[in-house]
Amino acid sequence: MINYPNKKTTFVEKKITHSNRGMSFENMINDTNEYYLAHNIAVIHKKPIPIQIVKVDYPSRSGAVIKEAYYKVPSTTDYNGIYHGHYIDFEAKETTSTSSFPLSNIHPHQIEHLSKIEEHGGISFILIFLKKLDQVYLLETKYLLSFVMRSKVGRKSISFAEIQEFGYLIKESYSPRIDYLKIIDEIIKKG
Amino acid sequence: MINYPNKKTTFVEKKITHSNRGMSFENMINDTNEYYLAHNIAVIHKKPIPIQIVKVDYPSRSGAVIKEAYYKVPSTTDYNGIYHGHYIDFEAKETTSTSSFPLSNIHPHQIEHLSKIEEHGGISFILIFLKKLDQVYLLETKYLLSFVMRSKVGRKSISFAEIQEFGYLIKESYSPRIDYLKIIDEIIKKG
Repeated sequence: MINYPNKKTTFVEKKITHSNRGMSFENMINDTNEYYLAHNIAVIHKKPIPIQIVKVDYPSRSGAVIKEAYYKVPSTTDYNGIYHGHYIDFEAKETTSTSSFPLSNIHPHQIEHLSKIEEHGGISFILIFLKKLDQVYLLETKYLLSFVMRSKVGRKSISFAEIQEFGYLIKESYSPRIDYLKIIDEIIKKG
Repeated sequence: MINYPNKKTTFVEKKITHSNRGMSFENMINDTNEYYLAHNIAVIHKKPIPIQIVKVDYPSRSGAVIKEAYYKVPSTTDYNGIYHGHYIDFEAKETTSTSSFPLSNIHPHQIEHLSKIEEHGGISFILIFLKKLDQVYLLETKYLLSFVMRSKVGRKSISFAEIQEFGYLIKESYSPRIDYLKIIDEIIKKG
């Protein structure tokens, strides 16, 4: 983390931050996607939570009530959609850790899914919210995969320094909240 | 429906049909997508059913039980994914009607979603299972939209003859069950 002892104003600006507004990371991303949709920039949605429904009651004509259901392990990622003809796919994770992002936060089949998306010509990545630094990074799947490979023989997490080196910092803004497509523009430009 | 009075064998072949195998349309599509995934042809998944969770119990450490939840109206389609770098998005519907497909089967925001996908450079369509004919058709969004436009001033359904004229018949096969990507190949070729 960088301190700017001579720039007091940056601390004022800092109030416009991710955590200070009391919104969950998921809601911030949903807001961003709604912004993209409303401005016809992209069509990206959060997938519903996968659930195994066991029992449903029909107490009235007006509708069904699910009385017993269980959370299922997701087989894909939370978000996908389209941007400028590109298939976009990502998972969003947050950590309260002060030093590293544990890879156990991401399910193995989510990692496999992200990898397959790249293979088929899509753009896939993870968004990582480092709560202690109040920063959001976009990490491309290729880097995620190399850290996953490393975890098989060594360290099981990605250090903040590594996230900062290999990921893209997403600048804070009001609207859209987490403008990750700005980073995708850079990635597309690089080809 | 065409009859082949001189070709008795076609009726034997006919036993390899969609309905005869007792599988739901959704399962046939899921099987098809699993085939595509297993053969590394495409990554297309069904989205989970959108549900509003109201009450969750934690009776044991092993897991949460959802005790009260409601079905939500889907804001997007059921299926999306990637094929040869193309974003793919579709909705699947079946009808037991003997003459037409009622447009009320598709939610207005699903139609809007399909339309947006085309606008952003993706490939979107609906799969229609005509149970009485035991046939599955792929209808591109552009045709669906023109029938929706017509429904505002006239007929509220698409006749079988229209589906057969503007849609693509998906040939029956064992594996994959409903090989809709073969049609997508044709659509991509046409540009």
